[in-house]
Amino acid sequence: MSEHINPWGNDLYGDYSQLFSEFGLQHVDSKLASRLPMTNRLWKRGIIFAHRDFDKFLDSFDKGKPVAVMSGIKPSGDFHLGSKLTAEQIIFAQKAFQSKLYYCIADLEAFADNGQDFEASHEYAVQNVADLLALGMDEKNAFIYKQSENKAVSNLGFIAARKTTLATLDALYGHQNLGLYTAALVQCGDILQPQLKEFDGPKNVLVPVGVDQDPHIRLCRDVAQKIDPKFILPSATYQRLFRSLDGTTKMSKRDPMNVISLNDDPELVKKKVMRALTGGRATAEEQKKLGGEIEKCVVHELMFFHFEDDDAALKKFQHRCASGAISCGDCKNDVAGKIAAYLKDFQARKKKLLPKARKIIEK
Amino acid sequence: MSEHINPWGNDLYGDYSQLFSEFGLQHVDSKLASRLPMTNRLWKRGIIFAHRDFDKFLDSFDKGKPVAVMSGIKPSGDFHLGSKLTAEQIIFAQKAFQSKLYYCIADLEAFADNGQDFEASHEYAVQNVADLLALGMDEKNAFIYKQSENKAVSNLGFIAARKTTLATLDALYGHQNLGLYTAALVQCGDILQPQLKEFDGPKNVLVPVGVDQDPHIRLCRDVAQKIDPKFILPSATYQRLFRSLDGTTKMSKRDPMNVISLNDDPELVKKKVMRALTGGRATAEEQKKLGGEIEKCVVHELMFFHFEDDDAALKKFQHRCASGAISCGDCKNDVAGKIAAYLKDFQARKKKLLPKARKIIEK
Repeated sequence: MSEHINPWGNDLYGDYSQLFSEFGLQHVDSKLASRLPMTNRLWKRGIIFAHRDFDKFLDSFDKGKPVAVMSGIKPSGDFHLGSKLTAEQIIFAQKAFQSKLYYCIADLEAFADNGQDFEASHEYAVQNVADLLALGMDEKNAFIYKQSENKAVSNLGFIAARKTTLATLDALYGHQNLGLYTAALVQCGDILQPQLKEFDGPKNVLVPVGVDQDPHIRLCRDVAQKIDPKFILPSATYQRLFRSLDGTTKMSKRDPMNVISLNDDPELVKKKVMRALTGGRATAEEQKKLGGEIEKCVVHELMFFHFEDDDAALKKFQHRCASGAISCGDCKNDVAGKIAAYLKDFQARKKKLLPKARKIIEK
Repeated sequence: MSEHINPWGNDLYGDYSQLFSEFGLQHVDSKLASRLPMTNRLWKRGIIFAHRDFDKFLDSFDKGKPVAVMSGIKPSGDFHLGSKLTAEQIIFAQKAFQSKLYYCIADLEAFADNGQDFEASHEYAVQNVADLLALGMDEKNAFIYKQSENKAVSNLGFIAARKTTLATLDALYGHQNLGLYTAALVQCGDILQPQLKEFDGPKNVLVPVGVDQDPHIRLCRDVAQKIDPKFILPSATYQRLFRSLDGTTKMSKRDPMNVISLNDDPELVKKKVMRALTGGRATAEEQKKLGGEIEKCVVHELMFFHFEDDDAALKKFQHRCASGAISCGDCKNDVAGKIAAYLKDFQARKKKLLPKARKIIEK
């Protein structure tokens, strides 16, 4: 692992152990997970594997104190299997804690990172909010906003700038351009906003994110009480990063043939899956004798992370591979079919929700 | 002169020549001044002594193209004789070019520089706008706003951040905290705002300021066309810095007994003037024989910069000193009386205008 975690890069952190020893992440264990008021595959399967102060958030929730959920998206493309994972984590938290969701459309960050102008971000934002709705977000219990239109957030970012040194930013992010530094400070504003007076003041806020976003959480926790001693340090839960289809990087829209976008034509997705990295053996004979290497296989991950909710069915799927009963070709064919069916259904749902999404964004 | 000009400091730049040779300021000469559609003491007396591209601004104006005037104030205290000078420069430009004035209440900067919260800035802003009205600003032809409430400006600042390197900021300002860097970038937004679509697009904009604000102008000119190639580089005119009463620094609200605030009790001002630095000789005899040293004298500057509009009367005043006809004590007495009368009149005018100022700020 490099010295810094780059929230704007595609790196995979194959060995997550350093995150705990060096950066102070806390482990999600079964005792913590058992405190959830409901559960789902992300929690049961350890896909959400680390946290900061989630126990404190649960304490507040258990005592009936007000809590909130906060997260966001850089609107620079369609949702893919990585963003789907974060979205599901957020939507689960919104539901489990019956909590207001603060959701940031990070168009300032899209500009700083990708040079993408606000108009382009606006159209992606409409798409992304439709994705969220189609994945189950309750828009009636959500405050969705664009960074470029939220003055409270950028003012908090400005205040954070005064309380932060360049050395701190450099230690957290490595050398980055001033736009990305500023974007990171504005994100402190996003995370702290639910604790402002106009949202009824200090409270425990949970930020569900991919683990690569941890530097933003650390920056915000570093600066929160310097801005206002009454602010409660934000909590976070972290999901593992979903790999690209060839298994080499984090799944990212920067590499179209290695990403499954939720907007992809189902037929194209079949082709992509057929090219994916597996844990298959060198010959059909070996495969039959030794079985596939599940832990290497991206196709297995597609099922484990996304497309097989039923634990018993997943076990059967794994057994079929490990026992050598199925070839990678046949397995991929099955999985591709399952994904194509999911996407067809998802896209039909999303299409109906697009006008509602536009209304939310253009309110 | 130090390597950098610090717009947040109190330094005097006794030798302005380096500003021309090192930083590329252009001289205001009589040919340029003669192109003004009207004039006043600031121009006739060389108090406005330098510029950037003011000739280009005049070219546009002469051709009947749209132009604008832009400037602002850090709302952290009452107007004093330094801020009065800038205000008069601005108000003159507004009048001379019948131009819309964009006036920024820099409350983000007040926070970054002084740690002053937005509520405190709000009250100073009401005072400062009343000062401007009492000095003659035409509020019907002005767009007055607070940085903390103007999203277009902070978005431009954000865009500027992406187009600027830390090395550039360091070269312009020296090492400063991240809040001041961010404030400087937001100020690029202030200066460029009049060229936005919603204000009818690119145009020549004149920024009348004190010469210590030149780094902000240079930063903005550096970044303007990187943000939008259609932006016209802003023009600026620069006034000399007004000295503190003891002659050691720039007049600044940080040193109460050495500043004349427009809100000061007229009787207190008399005491302050009596303590001011003069160009008087060691003994009454020498004074009679050699006359005072006008160029050293802050009391003379009070008249030259502020309180004697009539050139013939000023000449008489100077002669009386240089000829040794008057003692410093008697002279100070006269000047103090003149200032006290001005302040009494000004404060009565301002008092009546305070409700209008509040309405402008709280619109």
